[in-house]
Amino acid sequence: MTSSHVSRPSTAVLLAAGLGTRMRSKLPKAMQPLAGEPMLSHLVASAARVFDHVVVVVGPGMEDVAKLVAPHATVIQHDRLGTAHAALQAESLFGEGDVAVLYADNPLITSDTLQRLLATRRGEGKGKPVDLALLAMRPRDPAKYGRVITQEDGTVARIVEWADAIPDERAIDLCNAGVLCADAHRFREWLHKVGNANSKGEYYLTDVVGIVRDEGGVVEAVEAPEDELRGINSRVELSEAEAIIQNRLRREAMERGVTLTAPETVFFSFDTQIEPDVTVQPHVVFGRGVIVRSGAEIRSFSHLEQCEVGAASLIGPYARLRPGTKLGEGCHVGNFVELKAVEMGAGAKANHLTYLGDASIGAATNIGAGTITCNYDGVFKHRTTIGEKAFIGSDSILVAPVSIGDGALIAAGSVITEDVEPNALAVARSKQTNRPGWAARFREALRLKKEQR
Amino acid sequence: MTSSHVSRPSTAVLLAAGLGTRMRSKLPKAMQPLAGEPMLSHLVASAARVFDHVVVVVGPGMEDVAKLVAPHATVIQHDRLGTAHAALQAESLFGEGDVAVLYADNPLITSDTLQRLLATRRGEGKGKPVDLALLAMRPRDPAKYGRVITQEDGTVARIVEWADAIPDERAIDLCNAGVLCADAHRFREWLHKVGNANSKGEYYLTDVVGIVRDEGGVVEAVEAPEDELRGINSRVELSEAEAIIQNRLRREAMERGVTLTAPETVFFSFDTQIEPDVTVQPHVVFGRGVIVRSGAEIRSFSHLEQCEVGAASLIGPYARLRPGTKLGEGCHVGNFVELKAVEMGAGAKANHLTYLGDASIGAATNIGAGTITCNYDGVFKHRTTIGEKAFIGSDSILVAPVSIGDGALIAAGSVITEDVEPNALAVARSKQTNRPGWAARFREALRLKKEQR
Amino acid sequence: MTSSHVSRPSTAVLLAAGLGTRMRSKLPKAMQPLAGEPMLSHLVASAARVFDHVVVVVGPGMEDVAKLVAPHATVIQHDRLGTAHAALQAESLFGEGDVAVLYADNPLITSDTLQRLLATRRGEGKGKPVDLALLAMRPRDPAKYGRVITQEDGTVARIVEWADAIPDERAIDLCNAGVLCADAHRFREWLHKVGNANSKGEYYLTDVVGIVRDEGGVVEAVEAPEDELRGINSRVELSEAEAIIQNRLRREAMERGVTLTAPETVFFSFDTQIEPDVTVQPHVVFGRGVIVRSGAEIRSFSHLEQCEVGAASLIGPYARLRPGTKLGEGCHVGNFVELKAVEMGAGAKANHLTYLGDASIGAATNIGAGTITCNYDGVFKHRTTIGEKAFIGSDSILVAPVSIGDGALIAAGSVITEDVEPNALAVARSKQTNRPGWAARFREALRLKKEQR
Repeated sequence: MTSSHVSRPSTAVLLAAGLGTRMRSKLPKAMQPLAGEPMLSHLVASAARVFDHVVVVVGPGMEDVAKLVAPHATVIQHDRLGTAHAALQAESLFGEGDVAVLYADNPLITSDTLQRLLATRRGEGKGKPVDLALLAMRPRDPAKYGRVITQEDGTVARIVEWADAIPDERAIDLCNAGVLCADAHRFREWLHKVGNANSKGEYYLTDVVGIVRDEGGVVEAVEAPEDELRGINSRVELSEAEAIIQNRLRREAMERGVTLTAPETVFFSFDTQIEPDVTVQPHVVFGRGVIVRSGAEIRSFSHLEQCEVGAASLIGPYARLRPGTKLGEGCHVGNFVELKAVEMGAGAKANHLTYLGDASIGAATNIGAGTITCNYDGVFKHRTTIGEKAFIGSDSILVAPVSIGDGALIAAGSVITEDVEPNALAVARSKQTNRPGWAARFREALRLKKEQR
Repeated sequence: MTSSHVSRPSTAVLLAAGLGTRMRSKLPKAMQPLAGEPMLSHLVASAARVFDHVVVVVGPGMEDVAKLVAPHATVIQHDRLGTAHAALQAESLFGEGDVAVLYADNPLITSDTLQRLLATRRGEGKGKPVDLALLAMRPRDPAKYGRVITQEDGTVARIVEWADAIPDERAIDLCNAGVLCADAHRFREWLHKVGNANSKGEYYLTDVVGIVRDEGGVVEAVEAPEDELRGINSRVELSEAEAIIQNRLRREAMERGVTLTAPETVFFSFDTQIEPDVTVQPHVVFGRGVIVRSGAEIRSFSHLEQCEVGAASLIGPYARLRPGTKLGEGCHVGNFVELKAVEMGAGAKANHLTYLGDASIGAATNIGAGTITCNYDGVFKHRTTIGEKAFIGSDSILVAPVSIGDGALIAAGSVITEDVEPNALAVARSKQTNRPGWAARFREALRLKKEQR
Repeated sequence: MTSSHVSRPSTAVLLAAGLGTRMRSKLPKAMQPLAGEPMLSHLVASAARVFDHVVVVVGPGMEDVAKLVAPHATVIQHDRLGTAHAALQAESLFGEGDVAVLYADNPLITSDTLQRLLATRRGEGKGKPVDLALLAMRPRDPAKYGRVITQEDGTVARIVEWADAIPDERAIDLCNAGVLCADAHRFREWLHKVGNANSKGEYYLTDVVGIVRDEGGVVEAVEAPEDELRGINSRVELSEAEAIIQNRLRREAMERGVTLTAPETVFFSFDTQIEPDVTVQPHVVFGRGVIVRSGAEIRSFSHLEQCEVGAASLIGPYARLRPGTKLGEGCHVGNFVELKAVEMGAGAKANHLTYLGDASIGAATNIGAGTITCNYDGVFKHRTTIGEKAFIGSDSILVAPVSIGDGALIAAGSVITEDVEPNALAVARSKQTNRPGWAARFREALRLKKEQR
């Protein structure tokens, strides 16, 4: 929502009505996730960093998309008659100033690129505005894209669709990415001039370039990396985009001072927050909403989601932190341990084979191997509260609601159904009986039975 | 086993006698696995889709290979005297029609390529048969391969081995892949003409090309991608072939409508069946014989083998489904849960730290955290049967054979050795005793003991 | 510590005083880990295989580095005045013979490359020594490196820093890696001649090349792959170096006869020892100090550290072997099992959801699912000893110190606090009570309660 030109407003129109048939999915294309967040949200975020207003054009029945982008405005394109038609649905929201038209399936576009697009249109830096600025790229495989034909002064002469291009034109590797930026009033006029006299009978946004050139207007291409601009039309392309965004997130984490031993095996969400001097071992997955404080170590095969890990904590290997979990400083959560909505005080430990749900654990408390909270009775969820410096013996069961006091000790293998006061010992288990020779006789009986079969 | 030419039969001879010394393995090369299936099986499957008959040439003592490819015929090459000699061992099975000779260490060859080879030999499409068709490729690094020298009309003049090639010939990047296809009778004659006057004293199949050309025959090269044709001679090359086949399987899954967030971390078997609109998170391994129904979600770090996952089920993270497991619709199997030969009714759940083996779980039953079936007494395995809408409290032990009725409730921490009738509660645990101040005294005693050490 | 020239000694001086500011880490750069081992240790190991003596130049306060490289000598560079100045701090340890100066942030240099450097200096093979030998490379992106300008006879004319290079010189792709080797006495003299009349006021080692050339000396460049020579200055570059070293370790393992289905997902430590005919499935992490004997299979999602796996053992999936664990032949350690300082006899099994710590398990003993050793009382760790052919029922708790005899049987769900003699049965659990209809009434009560909320 920031702009360097308070005096001249700017609006980004995002075309998101596409169904994404080639995705073979029930989700509209704009809702397909990248780094745990719908594609469109990435684009909205980039656009909102550069443009004063963001307007999203959706298809009919896409209430979820409208909800996702709120409070940004949405307009509905009832008939899918092409990109120029889609952009026109938003004309009443073009406002004054400049308008750029972007596509929902270009979610990897950076705000830096959008800033350059807008600055080129306005002539910032170089000082001379152009009538139309467009984004272009030089893809590894340019085959299918329209080519950008430039003139001697570097401005754009025209766009040639690949099907219409002669060999010399096809040899040009600068390709049209379809994104345009111009003055709002003129853009509106041009859009109304776009016709649909083509094989599909659609109104194409790209035709605006020809209209501007026919009027003698100046068009300039702003180059950006292919990775930002190639469209996402299939699940294969979606997975390639995911790889691009993951590599960005990994690189950013490392540049901030996070150690990733094997970055290619670590998966982040768009909003993962990891402080410097955290180490992440190979094979770790961060779901949405994770914060990891400085000095923590996330070991292999850990899976974290909507949780906060305190400074200098040791997590994993094989730790699963689920939503609502908040660990203090220096906590240890070890292998095959699941925490759901658990608050742990500083230095608390749960190192082995444990399930804690809806629980508060006091500082310096030790949760033994195999401890389980029974937080669910089939209908209601109940809380378990454990004080500080308590010691929960291995394989204990804590039937919630239940409260264990500071410094209390639970004997291994106990089923705890009643509160335990501070510094008390609670035991709930049977006495051991040894029967000499019984095992030998049992095995003999099994052996006979096996022979008889 | 299908052919478009019922009137003219075809036979593929697969050379699989190689020991694969460079593999440093006890397994013969043809038995080395790719995507969970021996190399040779991949080739047999591709060949059987194109050729009417498949014959495999094995070495002595390779009964396992013969068993693997049955009911396809096998012949034994007793002495390893070269590829032409190997092919000749199968001459009595060449039959009428056309014969192609393939290699066990080219398991990535597609049936499409084999179809093109056969069609070229027969002149299908273009209408003019050739005397000999061979497969060729343009490898990234052609150094070691024999070069295919073509004439003006595009047909093959000759093959030059790299060692014999002059610089101009070495500069040619079209390489011989060794696979040949010709009329059965003539192929047999040519094979008998191959000599062994070379440094190794072996009979080389490639010499057939020269024999055909000397007779004035027409030889045509059919190009195929290197990835299909490069040989697998070492474990490094085996792992590269695995990567190629995994990428194929991943791409096919995505094209069918499966979401793979991070395809490069998901491993399939040759026979994995995943329906559209399934999501697979990063880091998942599919062993053999897995079926996943539409709408299911397989979360990170899951491992599945010979099992079926019902529609809209949630699996993992960290779920291990072992052979014989069959889950109904909407089941939940969560973290650190192992199921072996378990049938689960619709909507049943086992979400945390559980081992179920040899069990039937009724619909909508909830298995609490830490539940374990004791299905093994050291000699026999026994079954556990649980009805519908039952609730197994956390950390329960079900000592099989045992049966729990519909709607029954097992108290947390119980060891269940006797059947429980529908809607009953079963409890087997001790009463809790609290001893005030005991823990404080215990810690004091430990502290003193520590000081004394 | 070996040299082919006993009569002429050699010394490697390793410059390790750098702080590695761009790493944004508290660790000095030389201590950043690669494959589980500080960078510098890799370089020391390569150097010690070629040079008779290794001397390390450290910065002030780097006692940890000195400790790491002991018994190799260290000298301290108190002021950081440049690489020539750093090398000079070690001049009293140059000794007789030849000296090479290497950099701590080139840890991937191989001993083969160092051997070629030394041999070139000495004229071994070709018979004619040179005054100075240096390492050079042809990087994919040579932009920032100084260029090596050679003369007609192939020797080095001079080094041109990139900033000073004219376009023709920049077009040269042979780049200076900075590593030098020369006679000890002359090297010392040259170093004293290096000045600091440059923008940073530092003494640059590279200036030695110009000094030698001005004296009419012969300088020869020894080429090595970029992967060995590019510096590591940031965490991104550290992760790239990790990828290079992991690929080396994977390739070496495969060449020794280890099967890696998906090598790119397996992570080794510098000292991992895996015998031939071991199979490692996708997604496995080997920490330091692991030995795996022939025929073992390490399944997906396993994590091993300072342990030994016996021949033909089956490990995982999801097995965590922690330090001090030693498994005999044919052991099985299955899913969600953690072993810490455990010795297991041949054929012993712990297949599901188990934590064993500080324990000895006899041969052919079966540890049931959910077994837990209580080895920690909050202050002391205690041992558990189990004999041969024992059978520990599921969900048993073994409260250490405790001893279970050969052939003993522990009933499922028992808490064992006292020793069990051989062939005895030990039981510690409660009798089961069934309450007909109770569950139905309980659910009804919950339902009412829910309605009231």
